[in-house]
Amino acid sequence: MLMRELIVTTLRLARRIFMASDTVFDLVIHNGTILTVNDDFDIVRQGTLCIQNGRIAAISVHEPGEQPPPAKATIDAGGGIVMPGLVNTHTHLPMSMFRGLADDRPLMEWLKETIFPAEAAHVHPETVFRATQLACAEMILSGTTTCCDGYFLENSVARAVQLSGMRAVLGQGVIDYPAPGVPDPARNIAHAARFVETWRNADPLITPAVFCHSPYTCSRETLTKAKALARSQGILFQIHAAETRTERDLFLREHGVTPIRYLDGLGLLDAGTLLVHAVWTDETDIRRISAGGAVISHNPESNMKLASGIAPVEKFLAAGIPVGLGTDGCASNNNLDLFQEMDTAAKLHKVNTLDPTVMDARTVIRMATAMGARAIGLGGVVGTLEIGSQADVIIIDTGKPHMTPLYHPASQIVYTAKASDVRTVVVAGKVIMADGRILTLDLAEILAEVRKIARRINKRQP
Amino acid sequence: MLMRELIVTTLRLARRIFMASDTVFDLVIHNGTILTVNDDFDIVRQGTLCIQNGRIAAISVHEPGEQPPPAKATIDAGGGIVMPGLVNTHTHLPMSMFRGLADDRPLMEWLKETIFPAEAAHVHPETVFRATQLACAEMILSGTTTCCDGYFLENSVARAVQLSGMRAVLGQGVIDYPAPGVPDPARNIAHAARFVETWRNADPLITPAVFCHSPYTCSRETLTKAKALARSQGILFQIHAAETRTERDLFLREHGVTPIRYLDGLGLLDAGTLLVHAVWTDETDIRRISAGGAVISHNPESNMKLASGIAPVEKFLAAGIPVGLGTDGCASNNNLDLFQEMDTAAKLHKVNTLDPTVMDARTVIRMATAMGARAIGLGGVVGTLEIGSQADVIIIDTGKPHMTPLYHPASQIVYTAKASDVRTVVVAGKVIMADGRILTLDLAEILAEVRKIARRINKRQP
Ligand SMILES: [Zn+2]
Ligand SMILES: [Zn+2]
Repeated sequence: MLMRELIVTTLRLARRIFMASDTVFDLVIHNGTILTVNDDFDIVRQGTLCIQNGRIAAISVHEPGEQPPPAKATIDAGGGIVMPGLVNTHTHLPMSMFRGLADDRPLMEWLKETIFPAEAAHVHPETVFRATQLACAEMILSGTTTCCDGYFLENSVARAVQLSGMRAVLGQGVIDYPAPGVPDPARNIAHAARFVETWRNADPLITPAVFCHSPYTCSRETLTKAKALARSQGILFQIHAAETRTERDLFLREHGVTPIRYLDGLGLLDAGTLLVHAVWTDETDIRRISAGGAVISHNPESNMKLASGIAPVEKFLAAGIPVGLGTDGCASNNNLDLFQEMDTAAKLHKVNTLDPTVMDARTVIRMATAMGARAIGLGGVVGTLEIGSQADVIIIDTGKPHMTPLYHPASQIVYTAKASDVRTVVVAGKVIMADGRILTLDLAEILAEVRKIARRINKRQP
Repeated sequence: MLMRELIVTTLRLARRIFMASDTVFDLVIHNGTILTVNDDFDIVRQGTLCIQNGRIAAISVHEPGEQPPPAKATIDAGGGIVMPGLVNTHTHLPMSMFRGLADDRPLMEWLKETIFPAEAAHVHPETVFRATQLACAEMILSGTTTCCDGYFLENSVARAVQLSGMRAVLGQGVIDYPAPGVPDPARNIAHAARFVETWRNADPLITPAVFCHSPYTCSRETLTKAKALARSQGILFQIHAAETRTERDLFLREHGVTPIRYLDGLGLLDAGTLLVHAVWTDETDIRRISAGGAVISHNPESNMKLASGIAPVEKFLAAGIPVGLGTDGCASNNNLDLFQEMDTAAKLHKVNTLDPTVMDARTVIRMATAMGARAIGLGGVVGTLEIGSQADVIIIDTGKPHMTPLYHPASQIVYTAKASDVRTVVVAGKVIMADGRILTLDLAEILAEVRKIARRINKRQP
């Protein structure tokens, strides 16, 4: 075998398994620049990634002209960038059906006049299924291999995600109001428990979770019961928290504390809790989050578009809090594009702090991969390209004019690459998108079905 | 002829020329949703755009199944969005060769340790020509039909732009330091005058301009002489101004006034002046700009990435100042993508003002088209799709998952569309990009040549 062993001085990569010379891998990706996103952010030029049984089995270096190791399938990365699939730590997949339905309006007016009525009228198991398929197609095409969702009728979400071949953490929504599929709020925890039960061991790519909408739409009792359910099952507890100034002021007025301290008072800030947004957080809040072990999903574009505010992400990171990136739902953002989210996250905090060194490219890539995975309970499973980790891999085309020249791969990914540069997507060793074509979904059918739903929502939809 | 006359109540569209029924147009684009970006922001569904002699000759409506009017060439927009080509009001095209060379560093360190030495060593007529070709390729592929550039060796820039088929306003750089092609700063105005002379009537698509680098790198005398040259020729005078807090503080300390009031004191704020950035501007500055008639180029991504600050754009607009969008050069942004710039502009000012209604989608589209054109002296020439205006047109594919559903075209363009959705680009009636392929440039050759240059700049470039 012509494959030469990779000489990497870091301990991490030294963990690699030395394969017997007669190994035939399931899949080999060669001729790429590999961003491992390991602790040392090792970058392997002329790298070859070998996949066996859905996991990364070897990373090696090949000189041009050398044959890649034998494999059942081989992909030539064409000199592109090979990196971990992106991790979207917060979204509401079915809301893709409401993409761009109303914009540029005050938050409460937008929610009450457009989103809530549209949800009440159009959110059914079938529309949720179709809109989730659409969202999966968009995510796959833009290099996202794992998402963390929270919505209602989550069983339909899970069925759609399963068919797409993506990996996901899916939370059945809990709210103290009648919701799609949960007409009686008194049964909201029971519905969540049944969803968790159904999906606990159903599919290795799908991990159930609990999603409490927010501390202002769930009572103390609901919050503590939902968290108890999550704890008893060892699963993620997601909650929108401290998103707007209005919310912060409401808690100060009604409870005398910030939303974060309110949650802390209920004992909810442990390592299994994902706080979504955490925009209106002060130094004490940050200390409490850090001490408790909770993690954060940062959704900069949603926070900007809804004019919620700017989360102090550089302070979260300085306090050692894992922070992942999220797009939020398509009704507020209006897409599921983590490349744009990385670029925006890097730039927003630079201008907000007037410091161009904060949120450097490597930090932002970690947020969209390894740190994001950790935030949703998949740390060590996905988010890096290391021996033994799940083979969730994307290949980025670096041949387009906007990607030329290419001096620093990490910088290029954050500040230059676009979703449309993703050529290939692999989840758990299985190719689900090749050369821009999704292999798991019938795209034409999905688009036609969602357009039908959209015409019911608004007759002007063509 | 089956074509039915468009029934539009606005005066603007009523100016349309009624064509004789035997007219054969040069180019007809049919089966699209036309964003006219006229004063009323008329949107024409099932629209047909008829082009004759490089100008828009008619806009009509066709029911599905109707034959489009006879033409030498016909393009089916496939149900996509047809809109004015985008106008980039500020860039430094040759800096594409430095794309991503250094990021996440303090501004002065970045300039002095990376950009200035790289410019001194690698900026020659040949590298400027090639890097400009690369930039034109990127702009064309991302739907930009007009750009406003400022750099040195602008003659090489102009030759490259001319070959690309794009429209441009090009300013020869003026600075009181030795610069590429201008070793003796005492001759900087003379160089600019010669450039203007060369390109004054050379090509209907190229308009020469004068580009003074900034009020802190040009003396009073240089500024006033450069402006006198621009005035005498009736051309645009571009200048970076009030970009950073450091610059503002420098002027307060050394001159006792802000950079904007300093320029006003020199009589430079008339309608022929384009102020680039204008980040650190107060209420008085804004009144002076508005009173003088000067216009502004807003470059949100550059200002964010370099941590310069957030320009009070909503106040500029309220004061009636025309504001265009710009990407700045690729060394600071790091791309020339106006779709991303629109999205960022819309969101940045919402979160900065905590008001989701500011910078609505239509305003942002105007900034990237009609208002941008006005800012660089091409108002009424390009930037709208109206009878008589130049036929600079782009077609956006609306068939991808991230563009589905489509409730409101303007919102979809700003918050959802990506550069990669641009399928066709027309400048002055000539198709220069079709189905993602540039017809005017040899892309493979350009990429190969720029990679050679990049390897000289940094050996790690693959
Ligand atoms: Zn959310
Ligand atoms: Zn500039």
